Amino acid sequence: MIRINPHYKKLQASYLFSDIAARISDFSQKNPDTEIIRLGIGDATRALPAACIAAMHEAVDEMGQDASFRGYGPEQGYAFLREKIAEHDFAARGAQIAADEIFVSDGAKCDTGNFQEILATETRVAVPDPVYPVYVDTNVMAGRTGAFQDGRFENIVYMPCTRENDYLPDLPDTDVDLIYLCFPNNPTGTATTKQTLSKWVDFARQNKALILYDAAYEAFIRDETLPRSIYEIPGAREVAVEFRSFSKTAGFTGTRCAYTVVPKECRAFDKNGSPEMLHPLWNRRHSTKFNGVAYPVQRAAEAVYSEQGQKQVKAIIDDYMKNADRICREMDALGYSYAGGKHSPYIWVDARTDSWNFFNALLEKTGVVCTPGAGFGPCGSRYIRLSAFNSYDNVDRAMQRIRKALG
Amino acid sequence: MIRINPHYKKLQASYLFSDIAARISDFSQKNPDTEIIRLGIGDATRALPAACIAAMHEAVDEMGQDASFRGYGPEQGYAFLREKIAEHDFAARGAQIAADEIFVSDGAKCDTGNFQEILATETRVAVPDPVYPVYVDTNVMAGRTGAFQDGRFENIVYMPCTRENDYLPDLPDTDVDLIYLCFPNNPTGTATTKQTLSKWVDFARQNKALILYDAAYEAFIRDETLPRSIYEIPGAREVAVEFRSFSKTAGFTGTRCAYTVVPKECRAFDKNGSPEMLHPLWNRRHSTKFNGVAYPVQRAAEAVYSEQGQKQVKAIIDDYMKNADRICREMDALGYSYAGGKHSPYIWVDARTDSWNFFNALLEKTGVVCTPGAGFGPCGSRYIRLSAFNSYDNVDRAMQRIRKALG
Repeated sequence: MIRINPHYKKLQASYLFSDIAARISDFSQKNPDTEIIRLGIGDATRALPAACIAAMHEAVDEMGQDASFRGYGPEQGYAFLREKIAEHDFAARGAQIAADEIFVSDGAKCDTGNFQEILATETRVAVPDPVYPVYVDTNVMAGRTGAFQDGRFENIVYMPCTRENDYLPDLPDTDVDLIYLCFPNNPTGTATTKQTLSKWVDFARQNKALILYDAAYEAFIRDETLPRSIYEIPGAREVAVEFRSFSKTAGFTGTRCAYTVVPKECRAFDKNGSPEMLHPLWNRRHSTKFNGVAYPVQRAAEAVYSEQGQKQVKAIIDDYMKNADRICREMDALGYSYAGGKHSPYIWVDARTDSWNFFNALLEKTGVVCTPGAGFGPCGSRYIRLSAFNSYDNVDRAMQRIRKALG
Repeated sequence: MIRINPHYKKLQASYLFSDIAARISDFSQKNPDTEIIRLGIGDATRALPAACIAAMHEAVDEMGQDASFRGYGPEQGYAFLREKIAEHDFAARGAQIAADEIFVSDGAKCDTGNFQEILATETRVAVPDPVYPVYVDTNVMAGRTGAFQDGRFENIVYMPCTRENDYLPDLPDTDVDLIYLCFPNNPTGTATTKQTLSKWVDFARQNKALILYDAAYEAFIRDETLPRSIYEIPGAREVAVEFRSFSKTAGFTGTRCAYTVVPKECRAFDKNGSPEMLHPLWNRRHSTKFNGVAYPVQRAAEAVYSEQGQKQVKAIIDDYMKNADRICREMDALGYSYAGGKHSPYIWVDARTDSWNFFNALLEKTGVVCTPGAGFGPCGSRYIRLSAFNSYDNVDRAMQRIRKALG
């Protein structure tokens, strides 16, 4: 008799975005003349950089001729892209990462979700609260948790990030094996310093733990002294895997390209405590269950690193950050405490009330959509997330409406 | 202490294609004037259909303008593609599959590899021998097997497919929960009839088993009475999941688009024996660990179903099948027994000797590369696979050389 994976039954239905959609729909019916301004979902709104478009057209033409057609590429990505990544994203920042330590994929969500597969089921997992739900749900599916109780899964170590600790997780005071970190953070928008990150690398080394470091939002960092990669920290190569994405950097949310870095020295252990390198294990997983990213998409990603591409990407990010500045100014003027918005497209606002109540009030009074923090964990229940992914005009009008309604 | 998934250590190093590459390289050094003709790997060699190229260019242009830019799409695929698939690949064949039972993905390899995740670890797996290695390896990774002994993994039920049984697996005479079937088969090239497939559907219904049906090569079927989909068989909706791909149909090996069909009635069971529907479980897995296929790629796949696209795809497949015919004629003339080549781009030849010996002799005498059947399992050790994915000119010259050397 074929049986299901029983752990799937522990998953909580993900109502957040469908609940939001239902409430917007209800509001629109009652207020047909109010234009909705969406500052909820973190999805790119600006066109792909012109350099990427040109590169993709060229690659599509290659695919249209027998002589230049490309079939299966290397599962790990073409050398032309892996080499550009190693040079621009790591060597240029003083982080030594070789091209063959980079695994090109179709998304950081997939990679952060898949990576746990090469680790033991008995792994003790630590996550921030609030947190990107994929980190937790994929570990639930793998059978690493108990039941869901009071908003949290048993056997997961939650690390609260609230106004009280500047939204930065404290080092766990219990045994943990696998630690998920995300900087600049989704949803709180907080960035981290080299000093703080060093503390985590040291912890992982001392406790034989592994860090899964999600740096999908590194392009939004505006202070050059802040680390963009965990490999800027000495000793990180042994204890950290890093996830990067072109989604938020260059607007690839609908084009799909990302990468994962697994340094050759990065280790876990076998049951006898002997080190086992993760690079060959991930390589085996990646080449067995994945067939590479579309050739035209890899060419588009490569174009991000061209001189024109770099200028165009910077201009897009600068525009989104003007939106973030506009939101921060308004929150300052209204006297709201918040995190993020300086090195991140997200502004995490202390709503001083239940996040769904605030969401409803904001929608009713202004037609502006935010994301209720409760969707990211119990520690988010008093906060809301505002996203800078929109046009400046929309953001400015949203802020004017908010000032009028809440000021 | 972070520990690895111990099951990865059971995997056998996959030397097949690297061994082949090493032997070719060695041969080339010793015979610099002999042109190598590759009839080994099953990768498309012809350009994408013009309709797909045009659709992709148009979609890339949309991505270059803010007004028409698309960010995250539905994880399951855009309705425009799912509806075309349901209409052309199923309704037109008398198989009732709804658009929302189709999950668009970036590859059938990924899907066949990932699907086992939603099933219990204790699942008893049956696979043909010879077999596409991904079916086995992903179950090894998931901990469903014992050690590797004498060319096979413990706890897997192997179903021999040899000349003696017309290369068609017999129904298992032992308890199995999950059955992998692939028609037209890779590597043997055998197609199946509705009658034979009905036997499998009945078996799965009677034994509460699940069939994972890989139909990646259905486009090569030339006899209209043969089933292209398992859903042409009554009762299959409850017991079968089907995997399809644009890779071999329309040359998408480097463009990446495929889909999986999970009918709403398709069931597994919980530990108490109560039915559990697989559609919501797979939907949860797919939306948690996957972010959809690139928008331009989905538009290219949609164009496969246009009038022009259908003509162009047919012309490409016809060309590959001319190559297959050429190979079959030569094997007939030389008196070799073989399977496949009629409804498949693969010709599985009884080499009447060890497959690596034959591979070496063929390379030495003719410069033609085949795939040794031993790479697909012990039952393949006497066979070699020839692939029709090449130009007619190359295939014809390869056959002339073979006739001269072996005739």
